[in-house]
Amino acid sequence: MSDFKQWSEERARHFEVVAYDTLPPDNKLPWKLHEAMRYAVLDGGKRIRPLLVYASGLLVDANERALDRIALAVEYIHSYSLVHDDMPCMDNDTLRRGKLTTHKKYGEAMAMLTGDALQAQAFFELTQTGLTSEQTVALVKLLSSAAGPAGMCGGQAVDLLAAHSDLTLSMLTTMHRMKTGAMIRASALMGLYAGQTMPEPALIGAIANYSACVGLAFQVIDDILDVTAETEVLGKTAGKDAANEKPTFVSHLGLEKAREMAHSQIEIALDSLASIGASKEKTVRLEEIARYVLSRDH
Amino acid sequence: MSDFKQWSEERARHFEVVAYDTLPPDNKLPWKLHEAMRYAVLDGGKRIRPLLVYASGLLVDANERALDRIALAVEYIHSYSLVHDDMPCMDNDTLRRGKLTTHKKYGEAMAMLTGDALQAQAFFELTQTGLTSEQTVALVKLLSSAAGPAGMCGGQAVDLLAAHSDLTLSMLTTMHRMKTGAMIRASALMGLYAGQTMPEPALIGAIANYSACVGLAFQVIDDILDVTAETEVLGKTAGKDAANEKPTFVSHLGLEKAREMAHSQIEIALDSLASIGASKEKTVRLEEIARYVLSRDH
Repeated sequence: MSDFKQWSEERARHFEVVAYDTLPPDNKLPWKLHEAMRYAVLDGGKRIRPLLVYASGLLVDANERALDRIALAVEYIHSYSLVHDDMPCMDNDTLRRGKLTTHKKYGEAMAMLTGDALQAQAFFELTQTGLTSEQTVALVKLLSSAAGPAGMCGGQAVDLLAAHSDLTLSMLTTMHRMKTGAMIRASALMGLYAGQTMPEPALIGAIANYSACVGLAFQVIDDILDVTAETEVLGKTAGKDAANEKPTFVSHLGLEKAREMAHSQIEIALDSLASIGASKEKTVRLEEIARYVLSRDH
Repeated sequence: MSDFKQWSEERARHFEVVAYDTLPPDNKLPWKLHEAMRYAVLDGGKRIRPLLVYASGLLVDANERALDRIALAVEYIHSYSLVHDDMPCMDNDTLRRGKLTTHKKYGEAMAMLTGDALQAQAFFELTQTGLTSEQTVALVKLLSSAAGPAGMCGGQAVDLLAAHSDLTLSMLTTMHRMKTGAMIRASALMGLYAGQTMPEPALIGAIANYSACVGLAFQVIDDILDVTAETEVLGKTAGKDAANEKPTFVSHLGLEKAREMAHSQIEIALDSLASIGASKEKTVRLEEIARYVLSRDH
């Protein structure tokens, strides 16, 4: 087993324990909502965003408990977006991470509330880090910008209106920078705020650039996988984009050029990391995440 | 025109201008989402929560700009909850504040995103107050607790599962304390954090008690109005609770005893205010809001 595989699996298991212990208990009122929140978050996903939090935390010798709370916050936001995306009025999906989508399991009304509650809980977790107030405010600002109309929700709105319509490559890129890129960027940046002091502007700049490139590559690979992977491996319905006539990096560029684009983004990401001049020990996980994004098959 | 009517109308107009100027512009991408966010917030409602923010700000000689941002945050949360509540999978309502509900106007997918974006934007606004980081963190904690599973979303979940079922008066009270009470309480408390310093524990306690009582009375009156008011005056469909066989304070207590309950809650609220020992000038708006809640006809 590679060192990265070992690290990321250990971090994912650790995150699972933290989430299990921190999510509201399903034996306490409102227990059905708590149960659905736990269903939506636990036992699922690649945990890319928490991994980014933990990996960038290494750059600043971050406080472990603070990183846990930040990891919860970004994954709650991600999980809520999946719950809402899967609903009939959006993607109308039945399968997610190899199990029933939240609205299929708990009904649409409860699924909507589950997403809403997870978003609020994400911001609550940011107040539980033990970091300074200055660091906490920076975290709230990063997360709310990334999750809101200038970030994830805005990207989803552009996506919604773009379905079945032409979208230039430039617009497609902007859409994805908002829809998935903003939260990936925020995850990497937020880890920097869990150290003893506020992060240096140069460090913030390098990680912002790194994570913007990783985020874009992540989406390009997602589009490629939608064409090339099997539903079984993917854990969600494959071939959806083509079926919905949605513009993707593959539909714009073709498979080969899309792969090249993902590669070049990861190269730029690695250059940004190198520019920090930190020890290998501190950057190795971010490097490996970048390479993993390129090589993943689901 | 009474002094309170004048004050509350001026504050509501002021809030409208602030919201108009602060909500993301509908000529900027993602313009359709921005337009829907503006539709959901602007030109509507009694603005009870912003009024509470402004009124309790008087107790601490609060910074005006900070109060504006706090008022936006609480009203964004309230507005998003209405957008999601009105959707077909929840209350399936067509009319809200005398105009089409957001999903009727923009479609369900956009309405869901609109609500999601407004919640994120609420937390973003809390980072824009100009207050100290310590005050800001306190605000984020209050808002996220009140909006999340232990507050508004949790109360909605209890409400959802309680439909068509028996609910004791005690459970009904708990449900409403969470569903509407938590955000009313948070609104009043948040105004206290916009002063020069952090508020005294005794002041926080008195306003917490005041606002818990006002919140409960507000809901009791809501239940009474659902039975006694006309749709036209109410600006939303009247008689819905009985049609849905939902347990209410009126179904539990009858009209007369429900009115008595609302009255006694307001009395306790006024006693709590008096216990602060502040000048009339500083408490008069909170007093008037409490009396208004009791007397409102829509």
